[in-house]
Amino acid sequence: MRYSILTLFPGMIKSYISESIIKKALEKNKIKLEIVDIRNFTNLAQNQVDDYQFGGGKGMVLMCDPVVKAIESVKTESSLVILTSPQGKTWNQNSAREIAVKQNHLIIVCGHYEGFDERILNYVDIEISIGDYVLTGGELPALIMLDSITRVLPGVISQESHQQDSFEDNLLDYPVYTQPRDFRGHSVPEVLLSGHHANIKQWREEQQLIATFNKRPDLIDESKLNKVQLELLKKLKK
Amino acid sequence: MRYSILTLFPGMIKSYISESIIKKALEKNKIKLEIVDIRNFTNLAQNQVDDYQFGGGKGMVLMCDPVVKAIESVKTESSLVILTSPQGKTWNQNSAREIAVKQNHLIIVCGHYEGFDERILNYVDIEISIGDYVLTGGELPALIMLDSITRVLPGVISQESHQQDSFEDNLLDYPVYTQPRDFRGHSVPEVLLSGHHANIKQWREEQQLIATFNKRPDLIDESKLNKVQLELLKKLKK
Repeated sequence: MRYSILTLFPGMIKSYISESIIKKALEKNKIKLEIVDIRNFTNLAQNQVDDYQFGGGKGMVLMCDPVVKAIESVKTESSLVILTSPQGKTWNQNSAREIAVKQNHLIIVCGHYEGFDERILNYVDIEISIGDYVLTGGELPALIMLDSITRVLPGVISQESHQQDSFEDNLLDYPVYTQPRDFRGHSVPEVLLSGHHANIKQWREEQQLIATFNKRPDLIDESKLNKVQLELLKKLKK
Repeated sequence: MRYSILTLFPGMIKSYISESIIKKALEKNKIKLEIVDIRNFTNLAQNQVDDYQFGGGKGMVLMCDPVVKAIESVKTESSLVILTSPQGKTWNQNSAREIAVKQNHLIIVCGHYEGFDERILNYVDIEISIGDYVLTGGELPALIMLDSITRVLPGVISQESHQQDSFEDNLLDYPVYTQPRDFRGHSVPEVLLSGHHANIKQWREEQQLIATFNKRPDLIDESKLNKVQLELLKKLKK
C-alpha cells in the first residue's frame, strides 16, 4: 500500500509515525508513505492557502487551488482520493479491511477546521468521517485510517491477532486476563486456569456475546452467531 | 480543564500537541496537561508492563498493577477516569460538550492493542470508543478526545466558530466557498455573492438540511428544525 497524506501540518504526521506500528510497516516495506505539504502548492504571497468565505461568517476556508494541485502532484490512475470531513461516510472496521484489500494507493487530504471550499469535492472520490465529532483538522483522522488499514495488511501483525479483534463477526472481543491470578482481591475466572481448551473457547464466545449484548446491542447480527451463542442470546433477551 | 494522559508511548502524545490547538490552549492557560508513562509504575524487571494471557491466545495483555498505580498517582476526588477501548461508549460531539462543561480533571488511560487485563475496569469510570474500528493503541483516541473537548472549552476558539459546527442541532454544516469566484469552471453559488443576508441565511439552513438528508439522514431530529426546514424536508422525502 502506498499512502500520500496531504496536510498543512506535516510535522503532526511525521512525529506520530516515528513511534507507531506505521514505522515498523515502513521498515518491513509493507507500506510506502509520503507526506505532502499543501502549502508548497500555492502561488500566493506568504504561502496563503485559505481565505474568507463568500456570504460572510467567521473562519478561514481552505482554497481549491493548492489542494487540487497537491492532489494532482501524486495522483495516478489507480489512486483513491479521500477527504477527511465530518460530513463523510463513517469509517469502520469493514472500511479498513475493504480498502486494505482493494486499493493500492490512497491519497488522504486532511481537512481544515474552519472548512474547505466545497468545489474541492469535484476532485475527491470519497469523504470519510471517523466519528460524529468535530476536530481541529484532518490529521488525526488521517492517522486513524493509516493505523487501522495498516494493521490489517498482510504481514504487518499476526493474522490471528487481528482476526480476534472487536467488530469481527459483529461482536466485541472477549475479556482477557494476565498475571497475577489475584489482583487486590479480583481474581481471574476459573475456566481460564483450567487448561480445558473447549471450555475456554465456549466461555470466550459466550463472553463476546454478553459484552456485545450489554455494551453494543446494535452491532449483533444473528446470522453470524453459532448455535450456542443463539441459545444464549434468547436467554439474555428474557 | 486538567488532562492526565496515561500511556506507554509518551512521545506520540508530546509530538502531536507541540503543533496543535492544544499547544495554543496550553499557552493561554485554558488547559493543563500531564503525560504519565505507565512504564514508570512497574516493579518488574526490564520495565515489563504486559504478559501472556490466561487460557491461551496470541498477544500480550497490559497488566493491572502498573496501570492502576499510574491512575492512583494522579487521581483526586474530582477526577473522571476514562479508558480508551473499542468496547466503550461511542464518542460524539455531545460527549465532548458535556465533559467540557461538567468535568475539571480527566485521566485518560490509553489502551494497548492486544488488550488490557479486564480487572483494570474496576478502577475506571467509563470506557470510551471513538468509532467501530480497531487501532494499535489508545494514543490517537486520547488525542481525539483532547482535541474535540479543548476546542469547545470557553476562550479556545471563537464561540461563533464552534456553534456552526457539524452535529450542532443534529445537522451537518452548510457548504462554504472562498476565492476565486470561478475555479476551473466551477463557480460560487450566486446567492453568496448577493450581499442579501436573509437570503444567505435561508440558503445555508436549507443546504444544511439537504446535506444531512443526503449524507446522514440518521442524524435528523425534526424537533430541532425550523419551519422553512420542515417544509423542505417534506419535499425532499417525496
